[in-house]
Amino acid sequence: MPVNDLRKDYMLDRWVVIAAQRRRRPTDFAERIREERIGVCPFCPGNEHMTPPAVLAYLPSDEGVRKECDQNGFRHKNWLIRCVPNLYPAFAPPESRAEEEIGGIHTRARAIGHHEVIIESPNHDEQFSVARTAQLAHVIGAYIDRLHDLYTKDYVRYVSIFKNYGREAGMSLSHAHTQLITVPFIPKILEEELRTSRNFFMEKGKCAFCDILETERDSPRSIWENDDFMVFAPWAAVHPYEFWIFPKRHQTSLLELSRVDMENLARVLRLCFGGLKLLLNDPPYNASFHIAPKEGTNDFYHWHFEVYPKLAVWAGFEKSTGIFINVVPPEDAAEDLREAVRKEEGML
Amino acid sequence: MPVNDLRKDYMLDRWVVIAAQRRRRPTDFAERIREERIGVCPFCPGNEHMTPPAVLAYLPSDEGVRKECDQNGFRHKNWLIRCVPNLYPAFAPPESRAEEEIGGIHTRARAIGHHEVIIESPNHDEQFSVARTAQLAHVIGAYIDRLHDLYTKDYVRYVSIFKNYGREAGMSLSHAHTQLITVPFIPKILEEELRTSRNFFMEKGKCAFCDILETERDSPRSIWENDDFMVFAPWAAVHPYEFWIFPKRHQTSLLELSRVDMENLARVLRLCFGGLKLLLNDPPYNASFHIAPKEGTNDFYHWHFEVYPKLAVWAGFEKSTGIFINVVPPEDAAEDLREAVRKEEGML
Repeated sequence: MPVNDLRKDYMLDRWVVIAAQRRRRPTDFAERIREERIGVCPFCPGNEHMTPPAVLAYLPSDEGVRKECDQNGFRHKNWLIRCVPNLYPAFAPPESRAEEEIGGIHTRARAIGHHEVIIESPNHDEQFSVARTAQLAHVIGAYIDRLHDLYTKDYVRYVSIFKNYGREAGMSLSHAHTQLITVPFIPKILEEELRTSRNFFMEKGKCAFCDILETERDSPRSIWENDDFMVFAPWAAVHPYEFWIFPKRHQTSLLELSRVDMENLARVLRLCFGGLKLLLNDPPYNASFHIAPKEGTNDFYHWHFEVYPKLAVWAGFEKSTGIFINVVPPEDAAEDLREAVRKEEGML
Repeated sequence: MPVNDLRKDYMLDRWVVIAAQRRRRPTDFAERIREERIGVCPFCPGNEHMTPPAVLAYLPSDEGVRKECDQNGFRHKNWLIRCVPNLYPAFAPPESRAEEEIGGIHTRARAIGHHEVIIESPNHDEQFSVARTAQLAHVIGAYIDRLHDLYTKDYVRYVSIFKNYGREAGMSLSHAHTQLITVPFIPKILEEELRTSRNFFMEKGKCAFCDILETERDSPRSIWENDDFMVFAPWAAVHPYEFWIFPKRHQTSLLELSRVDMENLARVLRLCFGGLKLLLNDPPYNASFHIAPKEGTNDFYHWHFEVYPKLAVWAGFEKSTGIFINVVPPEDAAEDLREAVRKEEGML
């Protein structure tokens, strides 16, 4: 019996067993729950009254877009992008600032922050995989605008921008949307990435992530690249068909994106998610940006976007040990994704 | 808008948002995929040839049980418990010992170890929630026997004993069974528990877990106790209706259980899982033992059993930050479970 590979993440103290002999074909993952569209969609145009007032709306204008927010009970119509507070927020703004409380074995703090929904399009089904790239550039613009605004709050230390697609991946409303949660501390996974990349930088005088890009570029894990972005399956992928999107130029956060970068990223997103849909029959997924936190010198950090197709279940072993099992070697995933993205590119 | 509680685990650097205003009633969790029994069950009596030879079989005998293993192609029939190697192991025994390899940004090791299935009963459906306690005592006995045997291998440093129940929780075969995976290093979550409890012990001269038991005993998170065991919902539960089972006497590992302890634990398992089934319509779950590793002085550690009903999905936020969101406050979960376990106790 061949012994499986145990691989460690580039940055995190996280191990995964690449259980190659349990390898399945992409088609094995095809079964999924199809969403039924039930009742009225609160994110569709005309239903703006069903959500809180927009903190940001992109409206069409002769010079591109006009940026507004809803005020005094008035809700903008005919929007291109709409950002609203989540009606059931995990994190909510403070009435007053409160510090962490320590009480014996019970440590608690208050979940102060913001939890928002970015409605990506007036078209219910304009998901990343089928979206117009011009619309996706607006979506990225909205991420950056919200980041700018939320970083002005003193209780915001990190902003997590993430997408859940498909019910199995935790999506509760099927209208194309992204979520954003601000956190009053640096989340554990980010903290570990920051620590490792800081140490690497101090030791070697270069960015650890730039080093990864250089190494993975010509590896069997590379999927796609152009002058500005690179897509690859990470060495120690914990999810089947996991892939990461990186800017090639060293940038610490989305805040550094130029207008051209945004349009470029929009195209990469469209290609990758189109390819993913093609390959795996429109699978559910989670995806999230990893960006430098608001404060501190984070020159050593390099923002990126991680995509986790939801094709497996984390069970008792994963949850109790923190060791993961992935039945699709990243090299095999990359081979399939490379071909799918190339096909998608040919059709665009 | 009330601000949610952010709580930190007793031992781990792990935070959870207790999103109380997203509270749902137990019945909201009722929908689940029912398993269809397809084809022939390889774990049912008569189908022993469909699995590898047993590394351990409990056979009925006049003095209780007789312990055997399958040898020379002969497979024992009429067993009470049967332990077999997993046909698709994540970890497999080595052909030769190999050390961790370090190569630039790519760190790898070989996944050497054992991956076994403990078939809990000849009766396909004898799950923890409905099992005879005498049978459950055999199951616990088999865990301990396998632990003893596997701890003799020099490449085994930890043994993870876990159960996945229900397809949503990663179960692939519906016959009542537990899995066991040996790991050639101390898993991250265990390591963190060991570090924290070692530090607590050195500082305060007592067991951190004994301290937790003392504190939670009279808290709104307590669920059930007798002279030997205590069941409670942990302060920073990351899963809705999560509960933990602890021996009250300080024991570091299952290896310290007496015959009476085993019978006692069997009864606690039956009660708790019976109560869980009653309360939440037989929900899927993951459950696992946390025990002291093989080597070192681990007097400060205290074994326990953690149960995670699978009622929510970890999505983009959880996976990219390591911060969790739990919509059922552990105090509410404990109240519901307390009543359900009491009802179950009345029916036994």
